[in-house]
Amino acid sequence: VIYIVGIGPGSPDLLTPQALAALARCQLVIGYDGYFHGLQNILAGKKCLRFLLGQEMKRAARAVEEAAHGHTVGVISSGDPGIYGMAGLVLEIAGDRPAAERPEVVVVPGVSAVNAAAALLGAPLGHDFAVISLSDLLTPWEVIEKRLACAAQADFVLALLNPRSRQRTHPFDRACTVLARYRAAETPVGLVRNAFRPEQSVALTTLAELQPASVDMFTTVFVGNSQTRRLHHHLVTPRGYRNE
Amino acid sequence: VIYIVGIGPGSPDLLTPQALAALARCQLVIGYDGYFHGLQNILAGKKCLRFLLGQEMKRAARAVEEAAHGHTVGVISSGDPGIYGMAGLVLEIAGDRPAAERPEVVVVPGVSAVNAAAALLGAPLGHDFAVISLSDLLTPWEVIEKRLACAAQADFVLALLNPRSRQRTHPFDRACTVLARYRAAETPVGLVRNAFRPEQSVALTTLAELQPASVDMFTTVFVGNSQTRRLHHHLVTPRGYRNE
Repeated sequence: VIYIVGIGPGSPDLLTPQALAALARCQLVIGYDGYFHGLQNILAGKKCLRFLLGQEMKRAARAVEEAAHGHTVGVISSGDPGIYGMAGLVLEIAGDRPAAERPEVVVVPGVSAVNAAAALLGAPLGHDFAVISLSDLLTPWEVIEKRLACAAQADFVLALLNPRSRQRTHPFDRACTVLARYRAAETPVGLVRNAFRPEQSVALTTLAELQPASVDMFTTVFVGNSQTRRLHHHLVTPRGYRNE
Repeated sequence: VIYIVGIGPGSPDLLTPQALAALARCQLVIGYDGYFHGLQNILAGKKCLRFLLGQEMKRAARAVEEAAHGHTVGVISSGDPGIYGMAGLVLEIAGDRPAAERPEVVVVPGVSAVNAAAALLGAPLGHDFAVISLSDLLTPWEVIEKRLACAAQADFVLALLNPRSRQRTHPFDRACTVLARYRAAETPVGLVRNAFRPEQSVALTTLAELQPASVDMFTTVFVGNSQTRRLHHHLVTPRGYRNE
């Protein structure tokens, strides 16, 4: 069996009992090195295999191999493992095996980075929303740009992940240009960095005043829909109860 | 203080320690009657105000009033309270008050219904996705239809909530017609009913073979993007690691 376990955004108090119970059953736990930091007590006495960023294929292949040998394996993934996480890749690699050697895979959901960051802003995702990763490492930029344009036109609230790294600044600049074509300059924007982690920060701005330099790989960017508004230090997208 | 607490999809083992700690601090807990069922032990000895479905405005107004009188109030919301939940409405009503009478509002994120249902299917949300409620009670149908069409054109994975009730069958039929215009007949579709609740069920089908009668208000409907595929009994939307 492989448990693909969502460990939440980082704070141990957002790790669910279901995730803890799944990890307790594992003989071996595989993950990105940085995820083990807050889990030392929970994983005490278990074999842990720590991998570097970028070694997602290796992590998934190792998990499948160990499980095929009869081990109970945990693969930890920050936030929710189904959202740009390890669940898909492990299922793909396990799925290649013939039925007799194919391990069972169980996905344990978690509090996603998107939900956690949104909570710190108030309720930016109170109505229909779209989640887009701005990383063009695995996805052609044309696909990302079309998604941005369509979502902006259809007045979705947007949550943008992996928005900008030191080397990769171009996608975020392009995204701002695309969004400005369809959304008002005063559209509220919320920036949450390291939600429920040590260096957490929250900032409110607008599409026109957004400073790209304030955004990095640890930031989730929320762009409101036409109804989203700033209420004191929160962002709220009304669902419409008060228009009835 | 008002804590707006996400209690997860229903199973107590998906309620976070942060949610438990927030509820422990509350003198008074407000929510939809159906949410209290699994929380009896947790809320033992606390004053609980149970409201009916549709009484969202009353719940929010009561919470703000009680908090303005100095009480520590919990508002429970299933899944994540920021996603079509109570967070926005409470913030709106609290925000109307003058600063001196305005209670502090803290949103405690939860495992959303979308993440929970997706986990049972495998990894349908492994790439960019859009979440749309098909309820036209508070949102004009034209807005919903435009969002469906734009999201389908931009190849988002779709998670459809509140898809179909006994009386309200028309929106779901319309949604299927709109999606069929842009997506292949064989697009994988996953149906999850009552994720992590007693009558949980999971079914896989395709856009062409989807039976509207198999969908109700307790169902979350996932419609794949052009890359989503069925892998044995799971749905997977690859992020693209294997194309590198």
